[in-house]
Amino acid sequence: MTASTKTSAGNFFEDFRLGQEIRHAIPRTVTTGDVALYTGLTGNRFALPSSDGFARDLGLPQAPLDDLLVFHLVFGRTVPDISLNAIANLGYAQGLFGAPVYPGDTLAATSRVIGLKENSNRQTGVVYVRSIGRNQRGAMVVDYVRWVLVRKRDPQSPAPAAVIPDLVAALPPPALEVGGGLDLTRFDPAVTGSAHRWEDYEPGERIDHVDGMTIEESCHMTATRLYQNNARVHFNQHAEKDGRFGRRIVYGGHIISLARALSANGLGNALKLLAINGGRHTNPSFAGDTIFAWSEVLAKAELPGVANAGALRLRLVAAKNQPAAGFPDKAPDGNPDPAVVLDFDYWALLPRRG
Amino acid sequence: MTASTKTSAGNFFEDFRLGQEIRHAIPRTVTTGDVALYTGLTGNRFALPSSDGFARDLGLPQAPLDDLLVFHLVFGRTVPDISLNAIANLGYAQGLFGAPVYPGDTLAATSRVIGLKENSNRQTGVVYVRSIGRNQRGAMVVDYVRWVLVRKRDPQSPAPAAVIPDLVAALPPPALEVGGGLDLTRFDPAVTGSAHRWEDYEPGERIDHVDGMTIEESCHMTATRLYQNNARVHFNQHAEKDGRFGRRIVYGGHIISLARALSANGLGNALKLLAINGGRHTNPSFAGDTIFAWSEVLAKAELPGVANAGALRLRLVAAKNQPAAGFPDKAPDGNPDPAVVLDFDYWALLPRRG
Amino acid sequence: MTASTKTSAGNFFEDFRLGQEIRHAIPRTVTTGDVALYTGLTGNRFALPSSDGFARDLGLPQAPLDDLLVFHLVFGRTVPDISLNAIANLGYAQGLFGAPVYPGDTLAATSRVIGLKENSNRQTGVVYVRSIGRNQRGAMVVDYVRWVLVRKRDPQSPAPAAVIPDLVAALPPPALEVGGGLDLTRFDPAVTGSAHRWEDYEPGERIDHVDGMTIEESCHMTATRLYQNNARVHFNQHAEKDGRFGRRIVYGGHIISLARALSANGLGNALKLLAINGGRHTNPSFAGDTIFAWSEVLAKAELPGVANAGALRLRLVAAKNQPAAGFPDKAPDGNPDPAVVLDFDYWALLPRRG
Repeated sequence: MTASTKTSAGNFFEDFRLGQEIRHAIPRTVTTGDVALYTGLTGNRFALPSSDGFARDLGLPQAPLDDLLVFHLVFGRTVPDISLNAIANLGYAQGLFGAPVYPGDTLAATSRVIGLKENSNRQTGVVYVRSIGRNQRGAMVVDYVRWVLVRKRDPQSPAPAAVIPDLVAALPPPALEVGGGLDLTRFDPAVTGSAHRWEDYEPGERIDHVDGMTIEESCHMTATRLYQNNARVHFNQHAEKDGRFGRRIVYGGHIISLARALSANGLGNALKLLAINGGRHTNPSFAGDTIFAWSEVLAKAELPGVANAGALRLRLVAAKNQPAAGFPDKAPDGNPDPAVVLDFDYWALLPRRG
Repeated sequence: MTASTKTSAGNFFEDFRLGQEIRHAIPRTVTTGDVALYTGLTGNRFALPSSDGFARDLGLPQAPLDDLLVFHLVFGRTVPDISLNAIANLGYAQGLFGAPVYPGDTLAATSRVIGLKENSNRQTGVVYVRSIGRNQRGAMVVDYVRWVLVRKRDPQSPAPAAVIPDLVAALPPPALEVGGGLDLTRFDPAVTGSAHRWEDYEPGERIDHVDGMTIEESCHMTATRLYQNNARVHFNQHAEKDGRFGRRIVYGGHIISLARALSANGLGNALKLLAINGGRHTNPSFAGDTIFAWSEVLAKAELPGVANAGALRLRLVAAKNQPAAGFPDKAPDGNPDPAVVLDFDYWALLPRRG
Repeated sequence: MTASTKTSAGNFFEDFRLGQEIRHAIPRTVTTGDVALYTGLTGNRFALPSSDGFARDLGLPQAPLDDLLVFHLVFGRTVPDISLNAIANLGYAQGLFGAPVYPGDTLAATSRVIGLKENSNRQTGVVYVRSIGRNQRGAMVVDYVRWVLVRKRDPQSPAPAAVIPDLVAALPPPALEVGGGLDLTRFDPAVTGSAHRWEDYEPGERIDHVDGMTIEESCHMTATRLYQNNARVHFNQHAEKDGRFGRRIVYGGHIISLARALSANGLGNALKLLAINGGRHTNPSFAGDTIFAWSEVLAKAELPGVANAGALRLRLVAAKNQPAAGFPDKAPDGNPDPAVVLDFDYWALLPRRG
């Protein structure tokens, strides 16, 4: 008997080099099956991914995939190389959405290591990567930075020079792309069920999205498997029962999707995500938790050359087991409230009156 | 900080006016993904939605969606306007199925308020609506009446004049539509696995469908989210733990689908639903319940101008945690047996020997 | 009231005759919805069913369905006739995969009874069937033997002459089919993420697939319902609470799929199954179990007339609630380790360096 060494144990901190380019495996053809399962697992009610007719009225050939579904599918490609040994997903930044994705498109992903910093305990380090998802024609569909806390294989191995990339707090409006010929001239609020347009929102406004969604093990695991994200902490109760939390951890992206789905009540005209400015999973979520969400309008921007639409910079906050009516946010010490599980900053596209 | 008022709290009894027309938001393009998930969540084994080949043999261009999947998708459109504040779905009547629905079709829904009646406690009222689902060509796919118990915003607000619509106990056979060119001339019982045709069933006959299906939270929530039905009682354990039952309630439509799926054993040739004559959710169902079903043949009818097929009026009764062999039905006081969760009256299409 | 006799109770041992041909009901059109749900329920990460682009590079028109998804869908057709009253699925043999299956294909199944043997207790017997799945053009997609332990209706009924078919331990390499024009000339290991080719594996090598996947009731039931497999033990907790194990049993095929999905780590280039030489479910699995898997290389074979590819005969062993690092296998008495739930022998296609 020969024990094989063909199994990948994932990369450790020492395995990453600044400037390293990684071509991720297993391109994924996306389908209406993915869309149906995403709807079934999140309750997504935004109109654009729901209706070919609405999409056609707005100049697209058919309903595009929800932007977050695209994000998760691209993210899933990167996990085996970037975060199989990650202790935590620390943050996202500079996420830009590009070409719309349609059923039948095939998504592939690459990443570049843009920052490395060993932690003072020498047990772990932070890896910054810029990941790009592209469709079968090579067009960028999403381009984002994330940083993860990764174990070292050997605490004694030498540390690389620390490089922390400069990251902008928010993508500037001229950088945002309203891809694929989307044109809101024929936007009809009866289709989305929301009368509120870009002009109606003001910075400082906070919206309680009211509803709550309880997470089941089966639901978060099925979502995460759909994305072919194989990070171990989500699936293996036998190992996790002895882990940090004693149970499986919900993929943070599933929380983003649940919060975004809840936000349709109050932001039904936030038709699509233009950018992910930043995001942090401030606490873990587990099966049995009920997720609530609220949003804050951070800024408004016109989009150069785009008629009938504008961008809102929104902060989407999710809390567990606590309704969002009181806008749970930071504890008195400035740290996140223990109930807050997500703090997510994004640009959304909304129709304007013109 | 400004707290937003853009969130919809749903309509209360006072918000409905007799004759009011409501155009529901978020048209839905249906796909083979919806079909696969419906099969996965219900175990549906009826041949027509399963097989393009069988559908083509019967004159259709491809397999149509299961009629109940169509019903749930249309119903889901109506929830935010009609039943977000409903305490209970009291009943259905006069449900007629029209054009078959195929993957790629986009379904939209409208409703008209056809009855209103405040209850004597002045806390609640009953709202009767006629809802119509249409495809992208405007063809009716399902047209049904339902009535719901809705909270009043303010018990002191004045009551409208009580109007209760006249509803027929069953749609008359000439009103039934065998849509889309369905023609049973080439019907082959080897495809459905059932040799029993329209002639073989007699009024009074009762069929125990034998099998039981246990409900999981994940399954009923995923089904209900697939339909984009956002009624709160199905999803939010944090709120429901303090609610009437201490737990989430299963969408009644999921029970109809489970009972119909079980009925394939004994009614495998009940190829499609022609009409929903009536339906009541006589008791709530919860995760952990096992659903059993039995059917009673209420009537038989020829269909004018339809060769090789006839209609059976069937009563489909579902019970929880009790096999259907004893045909659980009414308690000695005439009320439903506490185990009975569904009493559903429909017309089905079956092949005739000719 | 007339109690109907139209319900099928399934076949008992006495109902099978040697040489009997059974045409199974309910042909199934397969879709990208089935593929998405299969990915969501298993976490399948093999490249061929994931990517149209990869499939086209290898000479196929688009991504084929995963071979095991095809197997389960064909198997599901056979259950109502073969194994509704089965106490256990005893084994599989001589399973050959033929034409690739694509979304839009319609699968139908037939079976022939090739062996019968009453057990000495006269309560049960073993039925051997050869089942063939075909697509809408009549091309074989999978052809396999299985044998099941079936109850007798009446212990006193006479036994047929015992006939046990001769079954080969493994299909000979010349019998294997690389269907559909699959050609590995343009195989690119960056797509699969695995550098290991046929030449790199040696008989005797054992691979620990490292990861574990915990089973939820909702997940295994949804998978089994997707295949329209209606064997009762998987779904009905009300009955199973008083059954052999006090709970629902996981469909053994779901275990095969989970183990195969886990095996992508170490066998990422085992692009497709060519044959199922044998398989036994050595112990039952239940919700809450975590499945681990390891593989052993049993043999290597060149494939006559096939350039750039070879076959590996692999043994895939799944264990529950025990990591596979120690290669759990047989107990000291030669019986399977109580943790081992699957012992599966198959031929896989791998790229060669040439």
